[in-house]
Parts: sequence; structure tokens; C-alpha cells
Amino acid sequence: MNRPKRNEHNREKILEAGKELFNRQGYHGTGLKEILDVCKVPKGSFYNYFESKEQFAVAVLEYHHQLEDEKWSSRINEVSGNLMDKFHAAIEIFIAEYEEDPLATGCLLTNLMGEVGNASDSFRETIRSSCEQVIECIEEDYLLAQAEGSMRNDIPARQLAQLFWDSWQGALLRTKVEASTAPLREVSDSLYTLFQPLAGTEPK
Amino acid sequence: MNRPKRNEHNREKILEAGKELFNRQGYHGTGLKEILDVCKVPKGSFYNYFESKEQFAVAVLEYHHQLEDEKWSSRINEVSGNLMDKFHAAIEIFIAEYEEDPLATGCLLTNLMGEVGNASDSFRETIRSSCEQVIECIEEDYLLAQAEGSMRNDIPARQLAQLFWDSWQGALLRTKVEASTAPLREVSDSLYTLFQPLAGTEPK
Repeated sequence: MNRPKRNEHNREKILEAGKELFNRQGYHGTGLKEILDVCKVPKGSFYNYFESKEQFAVAVLEYHHQLEDEKWSSRINEVSGNLMDKFHAAIEIFIAEYEEDPLATGCLLTNLMGEVGNASDSFRETIRSSCEQVIECIEEDYLLAQAEGSMRNDIPARQLAQLFWDSWQGALLRTKVEASTAPLREVSDSLYTLFQPLAGTEPK
Repeated sequence: MNRPKRNEHNREKILEAGKELFNRQGYHGTGLKEILDVCKVPKGSFYNYFESKEQFAVAVLEYHHQLEDEKWSSRINEVSGNLMDKFHAAIEIFIAEYEEDPLATGCLLTNLMGEVGNASDSFRETIRSSCEQVIECIEEDYLLAQAEGSMRNDIPARQLAQLFWDSWQGALLRTKVEASTAPLREVSDSLYTLFQPLAGTEPK
């Protein structure tokens, strides 16, 4: 597959436009022409980078995952305290950033999961793998929090990480329809209370 | 608006077809023609019942809400025990039914929220109101569970109900991409443990 004249800057411009439009209008609700109009890239050039609309959407999901991952690493390093408090404070920064963005329409992964989560093998596998990677990252933080004694350890870190991720996803959906970030804060605060170490237990 | 020859049976046939197709293919991914082909209703007749595709989708969401509501009332009456155990057992029946349905593709509400949750005022308001009604029902059960002492009461029932709903929504999304009901069971079991009464506290 010898594709000429590829340019990383153009590729990223198309990915960025796809990320915004898919997030706002969904996969089926967004035409390729609309994406190319926004980023001012000719149609022929699009096919230098991506084989199809579906393969492009998969690349957009991977691009989104990478951006969110970098954002999380930087946020968790901005805050201090024990790991349980750091996690809670980093989530608070995410929510504040969400509130400052007038165009915020939730998380691309969450929004596309409902629409195309099992529409094809490549969608299913990309989304499954993105979720799995995020859950593993949370699990790593939670394992450390349990080890230092700032988080209850009667439930495996993996299970708590899945619960965080699932409830965060649900709260993101509710944030869209309530046009308020209250659901995100509610999840974060509820889990902060529920995950506190149990009285009388010792760190492992 | 004097619309002739309306027939409740036909209306329900169209709603049922819409529910299945929107759930599997999304709102934008499903054409009106496809829905009418499935339920064998002529296009002209469709407009006796619904003004537009969007208004139809809103009616489908309301129809889905009513069905799920009836299902829940019947399931919770099938089981026995304290309210915390009844809730957990009724959820278990939901999961088992989900596993038996080879065409199961999650909850229509969850799937459409990501795609069209803020696409228009009528979508936003219908989905918001459906979520709110479900959360209120859960809250009522939880209030009784707290009063009888089978659920922790240091966190308001409303907050626990929101957490249940959000994490259930997220688990439904993950169920689609993992092609497994494990996420539903994980949420149900995690919350069952986390919501247990705290040692040393008394019922209110």
C-alpha cells in the first residue's frame, strides 16, 4: 500500500474534525463531505490516509483515546495528597474543564458505544480495547491506593475500577440530557465515600 | 388534527419495529422505509400516527419506558427477602433474560442517549424524563431498604439510586462491546457489597 503525499499535519486535521463532528452528531449522522468541508481537505486526499468511513472512525477513536490518556497523566501529576484524594482531585479538574467548554458534548467513546458499539468487528474491538486500557489504568491507581491504605481493600481493585468506569460512562450520558455536569460530580463524590477504607481494616 | 382510521394495533406494530431497529442500528442508521417494510404498514398510514421520524422516535422511547417499567414491577414481585436482596434478585432476573435473548443489544434508552441525547429539545426532554422516572423508582425502593435497615443510610437514597442507574447504563454499553453480560453482573454485585449497612449503624 504505497500511498503518496501523506502529511501528518493533514491527517491530524481530519482526525480532529471527525472527533468533533462524530461526537456532536453521531457516526451515521455525520457525512464524510461535512468532515472534509470543515477541515478543508479534498476527498481524494482523505483516501490517502483512510480506507473507508468506518476505518476512519476507528482511527478517530484511537486518536481520542491517546489524547484523553495524555490529559489524564498530566492532571494526576498536578494534584497532591494520598492516591484516593489525588484521583478525586484529578477527576474534579476534568469536570471543571468540561464546564468551561461550551461545545462539550460528552466523551466520544461513550457517545459512539451506544450507536456503533456492536455495529462491526472493528468498531467492537477498538471500543472494547479502549475501555479495557482505561480500566487497567484505573486499576493500577486503585491497587496503589489500596496498598497505601487510602482505599477499602475488601473488594478487588479491578472490580472498583470497572465500577468507576461504568458509572462515569453513565454519568456522561446523563450530563448530555440534563445539560449539567452535576451527574459527573455526583458519581465522583458517591464513589469517594463508598471507596473509603472500612473502619477496623488494615492496609494489606 | 383529525386523523382518520387510527388503529392501536397498527400503532403498536410500528412502535415495536422502531424499537428493534433503532436499538440495533441507531436513530440515524435506520430509515423510515426500513421500519415500514418490517411491520408491513404503508407510508401514508405511518403519518396517521406520527408527525415525523423524530416525533416517532420520541414515541418509541416512551413506549420502551412503559414496557420496561411493567417488566420491573413484575420482576420485583417475583422475588422475596429484605428489600436489598429483592432488588439484587430482580436485577439477576433481568440479566438472565438478557442472556437468553440472542438479539439483545442493550437498552434502547442507553443506546440512543449517546447518539441523540442532545440532538433536539424533544429528544433531550423525553430521555431526561425517562431517566428521572427510573431514578425516582429506584430511590423509593432504596428509601424503604434504608428504613428497614438492609441498606447503608449514611448516603442519601437519591444519591445511591443515581449511582445505580449511571453504573447500570455504563455496564449496558460495555455489555455491547464485550458481547457478554459480565459487566451487568459486576455492577450489580459491586453495589450489593458497597450498599450493605455499615457495621455499628442502626436503621433510621
